[in-house]
Amino acid sequence: MRMNILVALDSNYVKPLRIMLKSLFFNNPQEKFTIYLMHSTLLKQKELVELFTFIKNEGNSLEEVYINDNYFKDAPVNLHFSKEMYYRLLAFKFLPQNLERVLYLDPDILILNSIKSLYELEMKDYLYAATCHNMSFIREINKIRLKPYEIDEYYNSGVLLMNLGLQRQVLHEDDIYEFIDNNQLKLIMPDQDVLNALYPKKIKGLDRKIYNYDARRYLYYKLTTDGKWNMDNVIRNTVVLHFCGRKKPWQESYTGTFHSLYKHYEKLTFPIHALSN
Amino acid sequence: MRMNILVALDSNYVKPLRIMLKSLFFNNPQEKFTIYLMHSTLLKQKELVELFTFIKNEGNSLEEVYINDNYFKDAPVNLHFSKEMYYRLLAFKFLPQNLERVLYLDPDILILNSIKSLYELEMKDYLYAATCHNMSFIREINKIRLKPYEIDEYYNSGVLLMNLGLQRQVLHEDDIYEFIDNNQLKLIMPDQDVLNALYPKKIKGLDRKIYNYDARRYLYYKLTTDGKWNMDNVIRNTVVLHFCGRKKPWQESYTGTFHSLYKHYEKLTFPIHALSN
Repeated sequence: MRMNILVALDSNYVKPLRIMLKSLFFNNPQEKFTIYLMHSTLLKQKELVELFTFIKNEGNSLEEVYINDNYFKDAPVNLHFSKEMYYRLLAFKFLPQNLERVLYLDPDILILNSIKSLYELEMKDYLYAATCHNMSFIREINKIRLKPYEIDEYYNSGVLLMNLGLQRQVLHEDDIYEFIDNNQLKLIMPDQDVLNALYPKKIKGLDRKIYNYDARRYLYYKLTTDGKWNMDNVIRNTVVLHFCGRKKPWQESYTGTFHSLYKHYEKLTFPIHALSN
Repeated sequence: MRMNILVALDSNYVKPLRIMLKSLFFNNPQEKFTIYLMHSTLLKQKELVELFTFIKNEGNSLEEVYINDNYFKDAPVNLHFSKEMYYRLLAFKFLPQNLERVLYLDPDILILNSIKSLYELEMKDYLYAATCHNMSFIREINKIRLKPYEIDEYYNSGVLLMNLGLQRQVLHEDDIYEFIDNNQLKLIMPDQDVLNALYPKKIKGLDRKIYNYDARRYLYYKLTTDGKWNMDNVIRNTVVLHFCGRKKPWQESYTGTFHSLYKHYEKLTFPIHALSN
């Protein structure tokens, strides 16, 4: 079957994006993918051509979704949040109107196994499917921070399955702008905050250790599952390995449990030239 | 070109052996291999058939080199060392007499890159090529331990390129037995000790961080190269990653820098069944 993947990025993440896509293709050899790339002027033409060639050589297709920055000229923007944050929230407007479903993926990710169980998830009347932080202290902080919105869980927006058909029916662009205008000072991770505050009951929760495994927290997952989620289970059953946080595995100073694995996929993606950024 | 690989193992290492071979095939897609498997009665027939099928499906061939235990009935054997230790030392006798060269590899290894530079090494009048421990304290201990033999370096026998043509001309089985008889009490790692004591000038030294990288010592290699041998260089330039020591990456309790990478190759090798031993 053909799956729709949404990515949105600036030039700094073009190489990690390719590594993420390579891992997706490598571990899903039976599937065909259409990659929707949302971007504004930040992406260089040369990089776009290279990305296009790479995806085509892997037997998949790239669709450019160019967004003119002027579109957001009246939208609230400040130091904390840029226009790119709207891409995810408004994807239902920018993507082809016949698409019913798309899976958004951050570029700082490795796909380790078949993505089918995630992509084919029963959505019913959920607008999104995402994983939540299951650490209670973060949940409590966010509950307080985003009062009076009724937050039960705080979802991470790095892996986001979107029910586009339903979104087009019930979501309104102006609600988003209004929310941001009213809450500017409270917002830390704007797109994630909007998602959590505006649609708390409309997000289907996913198991994080399978669909959005935080690469920094190997021991946490292992210990909270009585050792069951060991390295063997991560490699065989975790679908999305997410390199959350400021330190990234393509940076020289990185050290972490999955460093060697990331570098392996990096070499598969760029057999000759090392990643420079 | 066709390369000759020598492996020798008992049933406990059949699964790691397949993982090692998978990594060899995966990272050397241009080459064809003949795998010579030296074994005695320890290997189960079912395992041999599975191994044969696996290697054939990868486009390579397996040659069984069965060694009757009776062959060694007069050879010195004791608690410390078994008959299997002779396999490596006497490979020149057991392998087909037309083979000029073979590369012996331990099963607790991953091959990360092209093996060509190692296999095609100029041997001239060297009997072996191997990597040495470059830690001076180990070298000094072994010098004392194996006196009066003139040891400059202490070589590791886990990766051993053999000049079989020359070995047939100059090596004598009886010298090995005699040496062992005379030094029984001193020997710790018998095959390695024999190699180091009998042929110290006839072993060509190889760069360990490329051809026999000790997986426990990431920081050591990195620091002793002023940071040059970082994860990027290991993944792109190290050919043999060797999981030395008692703790092995297929064991539940293992933790180590290359754990995730090992498990990745394990899954490539055994997509369905996890490694049980």
